[in-house]
Amino acid sequence: MSDAGAVLRLVVAYDGTDFHGFAVQRGQPEVRTVGGVLEAALARVLRSDVHLTVAGRTDAGVHAWGQVVSVPVPPDTDAERVGRAVDRMVGSEVTIRSADLGPADFDARHSAAWRHYRYTIVNRPVADPFRARYAWWVPEPLDLSRLRLAADPFVGEHDFASFCRKGPEGSTTVRRVLRSEWVEEGDGVLRYEIRARAFCWQMVRSIVGTLVEAGSGLRPPGGILDALRARDRSAAGRVAPAHGLCLWAVGYDPTGA
Amino acid sequence: MSDAGAVLRLVVAYDGTDFHGFAVQRGQPEVRTVGGVLEAALARVLRSDVHLTVAGRTDAGVHAWGQVVSVPVPPDTDAERVGRAVDRMVGSEVTIRSADLGPADFDARHSAAWRHYRYTIVNRPVADPFRARYAWWVPEPLDLSRLRLAADPFVGEHDFASFCRKGPEGSTTVRRVLRSEWVEEGDGVLRYEIRARAFCWQMVRSIVGTLVEAGSGLRPPGGILDALRARDRSAAGRVAPAHGLCLWAVGYDPTGA
Repeated sequence: MSDAGAVLRLVVAYDGTDFHGFAVQRGQPEVRTVGGVLEAALARVLRSDVHLTVAGRTDAGVHAWGQVVSVPVPPDTDAERVGRAVDRMVGSEVTIRSADLGPADFDARHSAAWRHYRYTIVNRPVADPFRARYAWWVPEPLDLSRLRLAADPFVGEHDFASFCRKGPEGSTTVRRVLRSEWVEEGDGVLRYEIRARAFCWQMVRSIVGTLVEAGSGLRPPGGILDALRARDRSAAGRVAPAHGLCLWAVGYDPTGA
Repeated sequence: MSDAGAVLRLVVAYDGTDFHGFAVQRGQPEVRTVGGVLEAALARVLRSDVHLTVAGRTDAGVHAWGQVVSVPVPPDTDAERVGRAVDRMVGSEVTIRSADLGPADFDARHSAAWRHYRYTIVNRPVADPFRARYAWWVPEPLDLSRLRLAADPFVGEHDFASFCRKGPEGSTTVRRVLRSEWVEEGDGVLRYEIRARAFCWQMVRSIVGTLVEAGSGLRPPGGILDALRARDRSAAGRVAPAHGLCLWAVGYDPTGA
């Protein structure tokens, strides 16, 4: 072990329904967030103040299967023991899927090479109460080939201004999308899979809302390119609800992971 | 249409997590039950007092996919319209899957030929927050062939006194089980499927708790027969938690359905 310190890496899954998002609301301990719950548990286990770094700051109601967080720790930390102890403290809505030690320069946010989000839709005339927390119920029929045609143009580097809620002044809305496709699970369940180096705020939900308008016939599939080129929020469709969205996985370069 | 009246039949799915079971608690309107919510909605739509009959009075926290309820209505009732109106009033935890009219002598409880329950277990070292409401997480490894051997003896007519919470004085605990088997879904998800003409109180959860003891090696699979023969609650295992249980389907004789 070197003196250089180490970083604890946790892969975390959560049901975001009853959380006000991931980001810790400093000075507002009454606002329950996933990050706040994790920091409190880590602080008790590590017996020190904890400020964790996170790969994707999911919004209120958004879920995660493969969220990644990191926090500097002494190099002799028993990562698996800490992971198990935290897992027992955070309740059944949050699960620590794995815990290990990374190099001192690992940072869950800045080391990430890509984020992969999954959006689930139940496309049936009748709702399914067991999916109500994790999928958007769309009763009007969606045409899968139209959805697929509409999803293609997002791949590549584009200015996503039409699909982003305004970020800080002067911040760019240019993003590079690596994957944008629909998967049919059967029984009316449709999944949209999108992977990019990074996303801007509400980008996935804005894209999904627009795609669903194309899939239901409200918008021609070719209209997606027009919406992209407009660089104007009003050119996109409605923002799809948070509860269908899940941060599925985060990728790291082999050098950083 | 005859003057003989008709009966409205609803097939209902619900997430039972936040309900105090199905049965209406008369005189206790502050206790939220699935039956209470349905009766209130039906009373508004039908503009009359409603006392519904139900196929399976599920306990607190137990779910349903194919629950059946019935209520007498005038023969000119538009069943589909009533079903849609009730569905809109009961929120996303409850779904009216279908609605139709049956003969005047149809009764969701007494006309039922069988009830089919499904119990879901997640058998993995790490929990899954998206199944936490609908499946029992059992981290210790279960042996599927032992589970199956242990499940077989339940088929047939037996006195289930070892697996029943005490009912009214003098009531029988003899039941006829038509099906008792495990289905492997993959990825550590195991389903126990049990069908019987009727069940006594907590019978399925008591059987599942005992089967899991056999599957984990705590109890020899052959010990199931001993437990059945003992006709004594203490011979069975712990009662499995409510949230893994779901009333999957109810069957009716063609003459009664």
